[in-house]
Amino acid sequence: MDASTRLIFERLGADGCVEEVERSIALETPVAIEVNGIGYAVLMASPVDLEDLAWGFALSERLVTTADEIVECLIHPHDEGVLVRLTLVEGAAARAVERVRHRVSESSCGLCGIENLEQAIRPLPRAKAGYSGEMSAVFAALDALREHQPLHRATGAVHAAAAYGADGTIRLVREDVGRHNAFDKLIGAMLRAGDGWEGGFALLTSRCSYELVEKAALAGCPLLATISAPTALAVRRAEEAGVRLAVLARSDAVLLR
Amino acid sequence: MDASTRLIFERLGADGCVEEVERSIALETPVAIEVNGIGYAVLMASPVDLEDLAWGFALSERLVTTADEIVECLIHPHDEGVLVRLTLVEGAAARAVERVRHRVSESSCGLCGIENLEQAIRPLPRAKAGYSGEMSAVFAALDALREHQPLHRATGAVHAAAAYGADGTIRLVREDVGRHNAFDKLIGAMLRAGDGWEGGFALLTSRCSYELVEKAALAGCPLLATISAPTALAVRRAEEAGVRLAVLARSDAVLLR
Repeated sequence: MDASTRLIFERLGADGCVEEVERSIALETPVAIEVNGIGYAVLMASPVDLEDLAWGFALSERLVTTADEIVECLIHPHDEGVLVRLTLVEGAAARAVERVRHRVSESSCGLCGIENLEQAIRPLPRAKAGYSGEMSAVFAALDALREHQPLHRATGAVHAAAAYGADGTIRLVREDVGRHNAFDKLIGAMLRAGDGWEGGFALLTSRCSYELVEKAALAGCPLLATISAPTALAVRRAEEAGVRLAVLARSDAVLLR
Repeated sequence: MDASTRLIFERLGADGCVEEVERSIALETPVAIEVNGIGYAVLMASPVDLEDLAWGFALSERLVTTADEIVECLIHPHDEGVLVRLTLVEGAAARAVERVRHRVSESSCGLCGIENLEQAIRPLPRAKAGYSGEMSAVFAALDALREHQPLHRATGAVHAAAAYGADGTIRLVREDVGRHNAFDKLIGAMLRAGDGWEGGFALLTSRCSYELVEKAALAGCPLLATISAPTALAVRRAEEAGVRLAVLARSDAVLLR
């Protein structure tokens, strides 16, 4: 599957000049994740690396904690999008059913908004290890990231999530129209390869939302670097989980928490 | 309620220089939307203009089509976030219950992923009127937008959605950590004020995702201008709904579809 297509636009210059231009445009495709036969969620994603996405999503959703809980992941292109059929071991599948049932009981019993609020922010595991490298590795990673973003170079509309060793060596990059999907794809790819973070870090081209911090914490990533600013909740969640943040990462400086 | 807070960071320069800096950071707060007593959704939003958010969300979710279907909207700050209690007229409340029941039956009956896929993209109303102004108004709007983004100037981490008349006069701006919330706030503010688009346009600081196009179509906005690129699905949905797109809007040129 391709992650982009070519479309024709009318380019209007501020000087009034009009011309026809063709451009690469990122695809944004409904991806239905089915867990042991039950429709679990529909994500809007770049339709590449979907097996990585499903594995990372299963970890971020707390359905699995290790790779051996994932039995099979099948990708089925469909008229309306892509169907991803995930088969989890019994205990993990039970967690998925539990989550679905929980959503059902929330709705059908008419749980009120306050109960929904109380469930919005769940406890996070504490990081087991910290970042073991130098911060200069983050600056070096930033300088070189663009060359690892082919889909973004073509479309100008997708995020990248990249994993680095403690010495700043790039290990893996994944791209997606959604920043959360990009990070899930990266986490899933590492899970599939059996790779740990080993004192390294992740670099994301987006702002630092609390959900990205939660994904980092659940994946055991000790340092999350983002190009744009964090939200206050992201900073609070990072402190709770012991994830180090390096935000507003620019070639001249980075802000640390 | 404030939309930002002050936090201390350690600023590390690429030259190794370290200093303490204080910065405004955007708040990202769980906002539970309750419709006629039932917990409908939790959004993560900048905790300002929440009445606008609730009104716009009700329209975007297709619970209401007109302002007089909204009876009351109460904002209750809570330890874990903010509770928004929306009371809709009987028919609209029934639509909300129907949507919640639909989610329940999807889950409890174990609807498979293919059925979820088929429901991901719903038909849109066709635009009744087109943009009646000159494209030069979009360039002028772009040039002046920054002065209407106080929260973004302070935090560098929030999106803006702004409404303009056909002559390019700015009418309203709303800001939020989420681009969808920013547009819902703008749409809700217009709905509350009884304002139509009247041949004008919307300008958003984000990329053009299909969900923003859907919101524009449902709100009757004839032209959606975005600073960043569209996705292919956004272009397709805009064509289906007859919403004009002006994307990758820069001071020297804009791409039209």
